[in-house]
Amino acid sequence: MTRADLPIGVFDSGIGGLTVVRALRRILPEESIIYLGDTARVPYGSKSHETIQRYALQAGAILARYNPKLMVIACNTASAHGLAALQAVAPCPVIGVIEPGAEAAAAMAGPVGVIGTLATIQSGAYEDAIRRRRPGAVIHSLACPLLVPFAEEGWMDDPITDAVCRRYLNQIPFEVRTVVMACTHYPLLLPSLARTRPGTNWLDSGEYTARTVDQMLQGSLGYRTASARGSLRILLTDASSRLQEVGERFLCEPLESVDLVEL
Amino acid sequence: MTRADLPIGVFDSGIGGLTVVRALRRILPEESIIYLGDTARVPYGSKSHETIQRYALQAGAILARYNPKLMVIACNTASAHGLAALQAVAPCPVIGVIEPGAEAAAAMAGPVGVIGTLATIQSGAYEDAIRRRRPGAVIHSLACPLLVPFAEEGWMDDPITDAVCRRYLNQIPFEVRTVVMACTHYPLLLPSLARTRPGTNWLDSGEYTARTVDQMLQGSLGYRTASARGSLRILLTDASSRLQEVGERFLCEPLESVDLVEL
Repeated sequence: MTRADLPIGVFDSGIGGLTVVRALRRILPEESIIYLGDTARVPYGSKSHETIQRYALQAGAILARYNPKLMVIACNTASAHGLAALQAVAPCPVIGVIEPGAEAAAAMAGPVGVIGTLATIQSGAYEDAIRRRRPGAVIHSLACPLLVPFAEEGWMDDPITDAVCRRYLNQIPFEVRTVVMACTHYPLLLPSLARTRPGTNWLDSGEYTARTVDQMLQGSLGYRTASARGSLRILLTDASSRLQEVGERFLCEPLESVDLVEL
Repeated sequence: MTRADLPIGVFDSGIGGLTVVRALRRILPEESIIYLGDTARVPYGSKSHETIQRYALQAGAILARYNPKLMVIACNTASAHGLAALQAVAPCPVIGVIEPGAEAAAAMAGPVGVIGTLATIQSGAYEDAIRRRRPGAVIHSLACPLLVPFAEEGWMDDPITDAVCRRYLNQIPFEVRTVVMACTHYPLLLPSLARTRPGTNWLDSGEYTARTVDQMLQGSLGYRTASARGSLRILLTDASSRLQEVGERFLCEPLESVDLVEL
């Protein structure tokens, strides 16, 4: 088997990263994917830098057993706190979701909003990555701790969800017309978010990350040579009865081949 | 030092159990308390039986190092899934919050509502414990996954919090006049809960657990002999910047003496 035929390893703190997998499978349907969700210790969004970094390294060690050609940290919080540490030790290239999202934001004109978990926002990782590309960019960052629970509860198209989104988003000045969804759960709340601020560009970091993966495969890593649809194997550190239902909502396809691993 | 002078060990998945500590310190101000919050892996409410049981045993092993006279699992989810396993191996008596809460509920007339996390409700532990005391009791159990995030976000006296409470509580028939708050976070939401169902008795399992501890000390375990206020030492598995603020809201006193431990 050539390197191009090896799978892509995807890691997330839970199942939010399945929205990134969904984008990968739409853009790159032939690629095989191993997804590791640390569902026993989710969420990472309110944990400390040291803990998140340690968890990311443990997850990378599990994925490395499957000999991936590339690892994707499909979680903004884990990207903010664990990417550099994992890149330093991983046996293959590792990318996170922040650089692709920041790249897209920096290319837009005007001030930028960034919404995410407390740990992602406190890291300042998006501000750094955007200002590296557009020095002096005006950035309004906001932690929205309740949005992940709402996305997982599945209250979609719901006035309460709209009210929560409005409460948070009203804290960002209304002249901001570009907002980065710096959490892989948030694309599920896009209808509610969009209602709070008509005319806003909502940037999905996961979507841009899938495009970055495409560019990397087109370059030195190579596309899988088989033309059949790639497999999707899911490893979870905890499997509660509700994961199946919620995971399928995130992935938009049935969750097959789920195995438990210990971290 | 006699056994009566040993501390009480309290374990919770995070910081919700501090509401139980608050009750203990009000009823038993002279007792010394070691509190262990597994903040790195919180919340337990959506995890599986096996994982929660394993975590409870690990936490019990840490608390055992402090040679407590009694251990309290101040978390409904961990009580539902980990109490029996921990009782089987612990070097001292172990109680959870479910039996005291169920005892209080069984003593009330009429049907009973139980609200808690998904894992607590799915365990059926409250229904078993109430029906052991009152066979044939009519019980309406309801998982309310968003209430813990709201209690931690601190949106108190807030119309959105009221709307979320109403959405959940309206699923319990209105003739139910006794509802057990089967999660240690929920007492913080009592104003919102009370507005949804005027005239309801809201039973706080943590409060009844503190009374049970008092009875056990009055019995064979003994009260601490010193008359000075007991110490409160807090061990956490992760310390994010937000814990201090949220923890003090739960405890209603300053969080001093916080140490990190690894689990």
